[in-house]
Amino acid sequence: MHSPGDVRIEERPDPTIEQPTDAVIRVTASCICGSDLWPYRGAESVEDAPMGHEYVGVVEQIGSAVKEIQVGDYVVGSFVASDNTCEICLAGFQSRCIHQVMIGAIGTQAEKARIPLADGTLVKVPGEPTEAQAKSLLAASDVLGTGWFAAVAAETGPGKTVAVVGDGAVGLLGILAAKRLGAERIIAFSRHADRQALAKQFGATDIVEERGEAGNAKIKELTGGYGAHSTIEAVGTQESMLQAIGSTRPGGHVGYVGVSHGVELDGLDLFFATVNLLGGPAPVRRFLPELIDLIMTDQIDPGIVFDLSLPLDQAAEGYRAMDERRATKVLLTP
Amino acid sequence: MHSPGDVRIEERPDPTIEQPTDAVIRVTASCICGSDLWPYRGAESVEDAPMGHEYVGVVEQIGSAVKEIQVGDYVVGSFVASDNTCEICLAGFQSRCIHQVMIGAIGTQAEKARIPLADGTLVKVPGEPTEAQAKSLLAASDVLGTGWFAAVAAETGPGKTVAVVGDGAVGLLGILAAKRLGAERIIAFSRHADRQALAKQFGATDIVEERGEAGNAKIKELTGGYGAHSTIEAVGTQESMLQAIGSTRPGGHVGYVGVSHGVELDGLDLFFATVNLLGGPAPVRRFLPELIDLIMTDQIDPGIVFDLSLPLDQAAEGYRAMDERRATKVLLTP
Repeated sequence: MHSPGDVRIEERPDPTIEQPTDAVIRVTASCICGSDLWPYRGAESVEDAPMGHEYVGVVEQIGSAVKEIQVGDYVVGSFVASDNTCEICLAGFQSRCIHQVMIGAIGTQAEKARIPLADGTLVKVPGEPTEAQAKSLLAASDVLGTGWFAAVAAETGPGKTVAVVGDGAVGLLGILAAKRLGAERIIAFSRHADRQALAKQFGATDIVEERGEAGNAKIKELTGGYGAHSTIEAVGTQESMLQAIGSTRPGGHVGYVGVSHGVELDGLDLFFATVNLLGGPAPVRRFLPELIDLIMTDQIDPGIVFDLSLPLDQAAEGYRAMDERRATKVLLTP
Repeated sequence: MHSPGDVRIEERPDPTIEQPTDAVIRVTASCICGSDLWPYRGAESVEDAPMGHEYVGVVEQIGSAVKEIQVGDYVVGSFVASDNTCEICLAGFQSRCIHQVMIGAIGTQAEKARIPLADGTLVKVPGEPTEAQAKSLLAASDVLGTGWFAAVAAETGPGKTVAVVGDGAVGLLGILAAKRLGAERIIAFSRHADRQALAKQFGATDIVEERGEAGNAKIKELTGGYGAHSTIEAVGTQESMLQAIGSTRPGGHVGYVGVSHGVELDGLDLFFATVNLLGGPAPVRRFLPELIDLIMTDQIDPGIVFDLSLPLDQAAEGYRAMDERRATKVLLTP
């Protein structure tokens, strides 16, 4: 991405092993993230940046210190490289590993990519995925892992009423996660018929079209006056954060994963909301083994969020389609 | 309090039973809260307001619907009256009970006080407390219960390193709570020799005098570069909230109980901090049975935070002493 709105496919040198803990993978599929739209729309500065942080692929080279991952392995990794051995990783927060490397700075919307800290970052997929499974594994790399983290951070589970703010891929897969984690009732905020349909397919029991105070009032009305036990925030704006906090009962949990843009939380409002807040870049690595197992045994099918597949050289059209909301999530194949 | 800085003791009509769920208690001791200093200093507006929300006392009258509490009972209650039966109360968040009444609006710096929702709010003390136990029970009414909640919200426990921001009564009793809950290491931010001594008496293992970035760096240095697992915030300013968040490792927990004044949290900073935040008015009622038991069996002695006792008619001097930091916590006896 050369500047906002200007996406081009260019030839670059093949990546090489730079550190003994690196691997180089042949990317078999990558995709465009909702968060890639922030710089595309000029809401984040961007200049001649490689793009992409979601990927599945086959290992082509490994550094001398790589022990767990082999050349030829079909692998999935998260958007943050992590050593998976430090105290932060061991506590399940690999996205904030003390040695973290953001994959977005490397760029996986490409034919090949260097993945740092390969042993801690990549997870081998058992067997050969089908085309549908490969799509789902790609979803696990970020949007599914992120929606899953939001659902876990919001402490969804049996008997819980879950509200979901955001009907993009992450919000939709947050619904899938909440359902899978046993939530009793899942209320999705959505105004788009196609997304509402997908939300229901993933397990939403109720749809709320109202927003702001009217949206909060609707959630209260649906929950005996109390508010949701658990709320997933998957947008990252002031409105969405306040919607999420306002939808949640005192003592309830908000899992927020939308990358914040212009969010300012008033301390006193937060104090009297008395909700648990946990969010940030999702530690997808924590969930990958479980998600890979659910996908490879066909128990979940998150790959259906990809509603447009394009060859890598049409990436620019993919960005346009997502920007104009013609597509929820675009898959790119080299 | 007629206006900031203007505290007077005046004769008022005795409180009476207004609702069948009310009790009227004879206040045997009350006190001045750090939060009473906000209006005293003009940081909150105040006009001819009764003051006080902490209390122990003896029940003098009960309404017709009161079943659990009897006339003559020696009782402790929290600063929020709660029904203790709604879903919010049952989940342990009585301070945000769907029928909550703030006791501060009634005022317990008085000889008698009406306590709404008596069955849900008041807890009977078994036996006759000694003078020292009575002080500790008064502490349980707010500062101990609040410090305890902060420690629980911050998920302190065995093996945890806990940082404590704020060396007032709540912060000091947060140290006591963290110690009691099994924390391995307790690092107190404090610059006052007398408070440092009390912090150590309650269980602090380390004292940090640095603040801001230097304070965060010190915490990191003491924790292998990671930050505290659990942080108690007991002040309520922008500086103290950022200190608490900045002291905490990713995936760690901040329990914040200082009433927020002018706090604005930047969403993106919070996102990348990736800490669990839980705070608000403490649900002291949740902890009262356990705290009363610990006090009446002399296992904890939180009452030593009271370093000045005055008769009620010298309340104005009590406010001055706390405002000028000549006293940590002032007890008032009618």
